[in-house]
Amino acid sequence: MKNIFGFRPGNISLYKLAFLHKSAGYETGIGIMVNNERLEFLGDAILDAVVADFLFKKFPTRDEGFLTEMRSKIVSRVQLNKLSQKLGIDELIKLDSNSNGQYRSYGGDAFEALIGAIFLDKGYLFTRKILLNRIIDHYFDLGVLENQELNYKSKIIEWAQKERKQLQFKVIDEVGSGYRKQYIVAVVVNGKVVAQSQHYSIKGAEQLSAEKAWMQIPQSERD
Amino acid sequence: MKNIFGFRPGNISLYKLAFLHKSAGYETGIGIMVNNERLEFLGDAILDAVVADFLFKKFPTRDEGFLTEMRSKIVSRVQLNKLSQKLGIDELIKLDSNSNGQYRSYGGDAFEALIGAIFLDKGYLFTRKILLNRIIDHYFDLGVLENQELNYKSKIIEWAQKERKQLQFKVIDEVGSGYRKQYIVAVVVNGKVVAQSQHYSIKGAEQLSAEKAWMQIPQSERD
Repeated sequence: MKNIFGFRPGNISLYKLAFLHKSAGYETGIGIMVNNERLEFLGDAILDAVVADFLFKKFPTRDEGFLTEMRSKIVSRVQLNKLSQKLGIDELIKLDSNSNGQYRSYGGDAFEALIGAIFLDKGYLFTRKILLNRIIDHYFDLGVLENQELNYKSKIIEWAQKERKQLQFKVIDEVGSGYRKQYIVAVVVNGKVVAQSQHYSIKGAEQLSAEKAWMQIPQSERD
Repeated sequence: MKNIFGFRPGNISLYKLAFLHKSAGYETGIGIMVNNERLEFLGDAILDAVVADFLFKKFPTRDEGFLTEMRSKIVSRVQLNKLSQKLGIDELIKLDSNSNGQYRSYGGDAFEALIGAIFLDKGYLFTRKILLNRIIDHYFDLGVLENQELNYKSKIIEWAQKERKQLQFKVIDEVGSGYRKQYIVAVVVNGKVVAQSQHYSIKGAEQLSAEKAWMQIPQSERD
């Protein structure tokens, strides 16, 4: 059996685990949670490393500020969620059927978990090859990314003015405490929450939620 | 010639570059900055990946929250600065001689740049082996780290009360704008700045600077 990336997996159980969302996970007799969150932790780190490795070599004359920004654009939650859809990962994810719509980034999370599974199964170089040849080459236009405006908040404010929508950014909750405290900010359009995100700063959460909201706006209204 | 980790480097120029702090860097004729910041960007990502890989396998029953926290403790700026000192990296770094004391984490930065250089020179598996056998095994006690209290702000407040010192946390500057804005917070003891750090949130910057300040307190006053 070959998988969505066209290679023959070794340890099938790793890949099954990668698609097991926490809402459909379970607890073993000795209190261990079984879901894809550990693999997501690992895959997130491997993805960051592979993309850093790739960008470092691809742009030998650019400074670390440029490399950092390009990586943020490639591994953003919005991009990874879109990737998960395009690759058909979304359909493979096991979610609790009662949680409809509650988890908005399970796709990107599962994509990262899948990277973790490939890494454990096949190692760094293989994972790098898959990511570069099957993902970055196919789904990312680096020239477009380089010029892409990152300030989604101002883009969505402009859109709201043009389309005469009532727009608000609202801090709706805080999670964690101390220096791990994060703010949850919602984008509210005509009184309806269209997107929300959390971040360590309110400004950060505003940008992330603005980016999510932006992706829902029809292409025809974006210019 | 063997280096501080006991292996024979291939591409010496990479290692020289890893020790070239930006204050002693230079600009080429075509406007490219030559210093260790690009290697630091790469090494930071590789270090995160290796530590994630290591912790994932070392703690097969722990959840991703535990893995994330343990990694933060291992790769914290304070730990990396200490490592740089212990390994003798500090003495190899080229710094502008006029910048005395201005750059407090050049050691940790150079350690990360060195990891980037090893990775480019020898690949992922070799870098992993060096990090596990020469660094984590030698310099980290995972049991101690697991139980280590992370809230340095409250630790330093307790210390100040016990030692009758006047203590303040002050936001002294902001850098960047929009969602990349960071706050610089100083720890001020008896009117003197003893440490400072930057972070996306004030709380985060307070914790990071408190951690730096804590490391300067004599062991005898820490309990």
